[in-house]
Amino acid sequence: MISKNLTKHILALHSKKNRDEKSLFIVEGEKIIIEFISSDKYKIDKVVGTNQFKSKYFEILHSKSISFIEVSEDELKKISSQTNPNQALAIVHKLNVNSSPINSVTGIALYLDDIRDPGNFGTIIRIADWFGINQVFCSKNTTELYNPKVLQATMGAILRVNVTYVSIDLLLKENLNTKVYGAVLNGNDIYKTKLENGIIVIGNESNGISEPILNLINDPITIPSSKINGSESLNAANACAIICSEFHRQLNY
Amino acid sequence: MISKNLTKHILALHSKKNRDEKSLFIVEGEKIIIEFISSDKYKIDKVVGTNQFKSKYFEILHSKSISFIEVSEDELKKISSQTNPNQALAIVHKLNVNSSPINSVTGIALYLDDIRDPGNFGTIIRIADWFGINQVFCSKNTTELYNPKVLQATMGAILRVNVTYVSIDLLLKENLNTKVYGAVLNGNDIYKTKLENGIIVIGNESNGISEPILNLINDPITIPSSKINGSESLNAANACAIICSEFHRQLNY
Repeated sequence: MISKNLTKHILALHSKKNRDEKSLFIVEGEKIIIEFISSDKYKIDKVVGTNQFKSKYFEILHSKSISFIEVSEDELKKISSQTNPNQALAIVHKLNVNSSPINSVTGIALYLDDIRDPGNFGTIIRIADWFGINQVFCSKNTTELYNPKVLQATMGAILRVNVTYVSIDLLLKENLNTKVYGAVLNGNDIYKTKLENGIIVIGNESNGISEPILNLINDPITIPSSKINGSESLNAANACAIICSEFHRQLNY
Repeated sequence: MISKNLTKHILALHSKKNRDEKSLFIVEGEKIIIEFISSDKYKIDKVVGTNQFKSKYFEILHSKSISFIEVSEDELKKISSQTNPNQALAIVHKLNVNSSPINSVTGIALYLDDIRDPGNFGTIIRIADWFGINQVFCSKNTTELYNPKVLQATMGAILRVNVTYVSIDLLLKENLNTKVYGAVLNGNDIYKTKLENGIIVIGNESNGISEPILNLINDPITIPSSKINGSESLNAANACAIICSEFHRQLNY
């Protein structure tokens, strides 16, 4: 059974303010929780789950010394943010994504300039993982990494990609000789540009790359549209997918 | 002022069942409504908007003989599905997307096999528009085109791309000699495959392409991942973006 205090504690973590204050976040869903436990990247505070979940994953819960609170499905429903909660919910310690030392970029890294949509942010991390891009840097105004919709959209890629919130100035200070590409609407045709390793800047969904960052870009690149009076732009995550694909193709084929 | 009946009528159109029954749907937002009025692709039933909207767009409303109901911002709020309604809401007649005669595909067409997420569906239509793909076919179980989240995600591309719900059998009957590509996890490396015009099948977010359709695919293609133990797949819209980009590049560069 779950205590009133723990219920209150978990419900509080559904809001960003409390996640920030306590430096904890929530992961929901059987598969993703087991991935979190297995990966050792994050420290698990505790797992709250059904008897069925406990029986199924007894070995790994035991071998990783996970603190486990057994609850009924009804109790789980009350603390879950999902309409159909999935056997368990984990409370996880955040990584300090703000003050990690910034290393030199090797290969390709992404810099997200104020990506606001959680689905876009999450799928961009999934794209990075797919193409072996291990570093995703974000401006301070990029949406919160531990928002449940972001976590969900990463589909576990959050465990394999390093995400760091850092100003572009600080990042470039450590990467003086790195090429800085930017996805813009009137840059060089990406299919005709010889792409090399570097940092790729992806801008905000509505406003694109902000003015101060635009000035730091050496290589503006564009996915040309086939239509003269067609859509004005692509969705930010879709543009990012195409750009990462084209970098990957040129560097590996 | 808005009548009780019209209020009720509009509120009803927020549900798919009523949109289906009345063959009407709702478009919200100043810019997209003007795009709908300008394009002539859809017949506008009426526009409900503020005095400010009417003054700003008086000419086009008049020249296109649009029936206009003036309301206060408070009234607009009551009939809108948005938290911050944007000056106007339009009631629009659906196109008959189910029984359009199926023509032969020229160039590239997409076939969506049960895309369920409205955001994915909408951005796929936007991707198609970007790359000059004018035909998007969908299985009957693909999400509803007139769902407000789909409309929003198309960002107006719905006005420039033809969307038709049709079984793959019927589509292929009219396209006997057309290549059928399918996005799968273990097909031919897309970057090494010589891509030609044809139909590209994109599968459901969780299950990929369904078994009966898989059997109809001549050319299974895959975006190879750079990692052995990385993400299992890409988001369906992101995969579609990369595939359309690679077709575009190979056919035009």
